[in-house]
Amino acid sequence: MDLWFTEYHTQNACFSIKVKKQVVSLESEFQRIDVFDSYDFGRILVLDGYLMLTEKDEFIYHEMITHVPMAVNPGIRDVLVIGAGDGGVVRELTKYESINRIDMVEIDKLVVDVCREYLPRTSCRLDDPRVHIYYENGLDFVVRKDKEYDLIIVDSTDPFGPGEELFTRVFYANCFKALKGSGIMVNQHESPYYPNDALAVQKTHKHIKSVFPIALVYQAHIPTYPSGHFLFGFASKGLDPVANLDAGWDSLGIETRYYNTGLHKGCFALPNYVKELLD
Amino acid sequence: MDLWFTEYHTQNACFSIKVKKQVVSLESEFQRIDVFDSYDFGRILVLDGYLMLTEKDEFIYHEMITHVPMAVNPGIRDVLVIGAGDGGVVRELTKYESINRIDMVEIDKLVVDVCREYLPRTSCRLDDPRVHIYYENGLDFVVRKDKEYDLIIVDSTDPFGPGEELFTRVFYANCFKALKGSGIMVNQHESPYYPNDALAVQKTHKHIKSVFPIALVYQAHIPTYPSGHFLFGFASKGLDPVANLDAGWDSLGIETRYYNTGLHKGCFALPNYVKELLD
Repeated sequence: MDLWFTEYHTQNACFSIKVKKQVVSLESEFQRIDVFDSYDFGRILVLDGYLMLTEKDEFIYHEMITHVPMAVNPGIRDVLVIGAGDGGVVRELTKYESINRIDMVEIDKLVVDVCREYLPRTSCRLDDPRVHIYYENGLDFVVRKDKEYDLIIVDSTDPFGPGEELFTRVFYANCFKALKGSGIMVNQHESPYYPNDALAVQKTHKHIKSVFPIALVYQAHIPTYPSGHFLFGFASKGLDPVANLDAGWDSLGIETRYYNTGLHKGCFALPNYVKELLD
Repeated sequence: MDLWFTEYHTQNACFSIKVKKQVVSLESEFQRIDVFDSYDFGRILVLDGYLMLTEKDEFIYHEMITHVPMAVNPGIRDVLVIGAGDGGVVRELTKYESINRIDMVEIDKLVVDVCREYLPRTSCRLDDPRVHIYYENGLDFVVRKDKEYDLIIVDSTDPFGPGEELFTRVFYANCFKALKGSGIMVNQHESPYYPNDALAVQKTHKHIKSVFPIALVYQAHIPTYPSGHFLFGFASKGLDPVANLDAGWDSLGIETRYYNTGLHKGCFALPNYVKELLD
């Protein structure tokens, strides 16, 4: 049978993945949630029709959003993760014995339930004793926090739908407040290639730059995201992601398939057209 | 009307571009040649059903295959370009006043004729007086050359069809012979993501490494190529692409939309899974 999942990157460009079957399809209070078994990408998670992860390349996203900040400050103990219902960020964070607490705030409990059942490769560490899951709005949660976290990872969906609020200046200002003095915030920053995504990149970066003294952008190759050229934001109260890269990270013995400290330095060097977009 | 060009990246994954019309479709002695007008990517060139370039992002490929070697050795005078019928590499090379001669060897004259007529943005500098076009097989041409070039750029199609020979050890050995003492060879090196492409990457790198004392790989984000994660090979008789990066490149005033010297250093830092593929 020919059964294809198609994501439109624009009205005039799309990427299609042949699937074996639809594993589950549910409608939560917030969004439609689908899981498919695909031929080439393993299981894939789709929210409101947008591809969120594939088992084939989720390691790239999750390693890059987690190990870049962790390698800058080995003193990170308290971490807040916003979104990230699939558990991939938590899986990477639990590789660090030095972390004491991981608070995860996910608006949609059904995403977590679905991932626990159907995506064990990402959700496998959600029961680590250091992990506390709060099912609520990320902005409401962070508003109540003051200098509590060393690191905030914003692993949201796109800047429309349930994740929209997590791209606002108000949200970033509250993240700043919730961070300790050496705090770092990392966020998924969309792609610079297609015009609509590029506008989101621009707006998001402007907001973050208006709140944090250090606000940089780094890139990764994530083939199943639109254009495959994906950006992350690195913002901090003072730590520079390259100058402050911890020389001891390699000796931690953390296994990664994408991230390494050479790449860490390289990924902050952006193409001219992306730099112009951000300026 | 809904008219879509689709390229299969594997049997189970494809990328589709909505087109306004087919501008031309011809069959040469070597391959089928199509040009389409698309909505989001400008004109696109398709050879034997494979997307070769789009006007929207060809600058990434052409800048990265040209300026990386040019910035390593400002003394480059004699350049051999193999393939490159669309003229994009020549366009970038002619930005250097220091270059004396550009020999371009393209097996398929009809590709050049089509690009001259329908893709002026890439073919615009093919009439530069320093450019000499030879319509013949790249291997046959390079076999006759001895220590004649400072730089060879291999801008071939994929490692099957008319470009197959340009991925063999014999070809690379003849490129080595055709290069002067400080010679550099750069080639398009496919993508590491999909299994078949990854095998080609591995085989190509092994061949080049067996011929050149310096053989490295660098990467770029080219959204319309399979996976968007594209590799280039940098091989030389002695020059190291990062250690020997010329500090004077920025002062040349060459305008680029992707390449810059910061990115030059960053693009040689590869993800772990790519490094493992190459080892």
